[in-house]
Amino acid sequence: MTVTEYPVATTTDLYQQVQQFYARQMHLLDSGKAELWADTFTRDGVFAANAHPQPAVGRAVIAASARKATDEYAAKGVQRRHWLGMLSVEDHGDRVSARCYALVVETPRGGQAAIRASTLCEDVLVRHEGGWLVRDRHVTRDDLV
Amino acid sequence: MTVTEYPVATTTDLYQQVQQFYARQMHLLDSGKAELWADTFTRDGVFAANAHPQPAVGRAVIAASARKATDEYAAKGVQRRHWLGMLSVEDHGDRVSARCYALVVETPRGGQAAIRASTLCEDVLVRHEGGWLVRDRHVTRDDLV
Amino acid sequence: MTVTEYPVATTTDLYQQVQQFYARQMHLLDSGKAELWADTFTRDGVFAANAHPQPAVGRAVIAASARKATDEYAAKGVQRRHWLGMLSVEDHGDRVSARCYALVVETPRGGQAAIRASTLCEDVLVRHEGGWLVRDRHVTRDDLV
Repeated sequence: MTVTEYPVATTTDLYQQVQQFYARQMHLLDSGKAELWADTFTRDGVFAANAHPQPAVGRAVIAASARKATDEYAAKGVQRRHWLGMLSVEDHGDRVSARCYALVVETPRGGQAAIRASTLCEDVLVRHEGGWLVRDRHVTRDDLV
Repeated sequence: MTVTEYPVATTTDLYQQVQQFYARQMHLLDSGKAELWADTFTRDGVFAANAHPQPAVGRAVIAASARKATDEYAAKGVQRRHWLGMLSVEDHGDRVSARCYALVVETPRGGQAAIRASTLCEDVLVRHEGGWLVRDRHVTRDDLV
Repeated sequence: MTVTEYPVATTTDLYQQVQQFYARQMHLLDSGKAELWADTFTRDGVFAANAHPQPAVGRAVIAASARKATDEYAAKGVQRRHWLGMLSVEDHGDRVSARCYALVVETPRGGQAAIRASTLCEDVLVRHEGGWLVRDRHVTRDDLV
């Protein structure tokens, strides 16, 4: 009899896991933990965006890019919050496709919160030690379409 | 022994199903698939809103109204995103009541994303082939109350 | 054999319960039911915020504070909507830690909806009669950090 260490989740479990994974992932980025955020990608993970000339490939590159942006926001005294929502997940066995909307909300210290960008986020997620990692993320900013 | 093809969902399953249904429904509308969006209503479905003089009744009318709005947004180069959240569901056996907030976020091409409207969305949902359809939707725009 | 009246929820059930609890809690506040909203806190519940000089302690104080704000918004003709999202929950057995983002969206009658504030919301929740109560809430407004 085969023992499945991480059994296939029901759709309900899977959906909840991805919601919580996204929450924790963005809590890391928005609190300035750029390197820990990059660790939520696979080692060879890809972050592509229509706002960037070319994809960031691999954790080290993704971390460096996030660190640079994070430090710039900190220097400006701007708090970012990434909101992911309207999530749809599809289980393909060895990977999960997730499609969601993402808003970036920014608040300058002493100033007014506002939406900075509205985007579509398309992920390929893979299981890792009972949790999840992003293998491929593609972010499409609505203003650049 | 009776076979229940689509067993009554637990509250947790139900909640997840409605979340994913809403995500997919709005992905259809926001990507311009007005007719497929209308197919997420029952044939005799009702879409009522305090912003409209009278309810749209039936899929064909709902589709035509959505197609008109969709084409206007496309012509203006504006990307709409419907965000539904703060969802509360109540199972009544043969139907489900769902109450949520809905934001419409708009981004003009090359421009700034912003909230267009904040609303309350009250739905009656019914099961259909293992999924869901909207039988009755009532949208209340906060600025018109 | 011991009967556990309210069994420990799975993470998935717990996550759904907190989502629905938050939705209903904020529906109460945003529809002006300040006292019913305060009843979603424990009797000795604490509401602390970096926007307030000191925490509100106990249901009566929390209710009075919410009633005052609610009446002011009603007098101004402004509809508030509290959006909680990006939820992460952690089960500690006798209590649950929940961390989420919260946006306050405001719409003046006849006017434009806009984000009023972006915040981080950190809760300690406890089980109560099969549902949940807030024992401790700490809200950090991003503009005041």
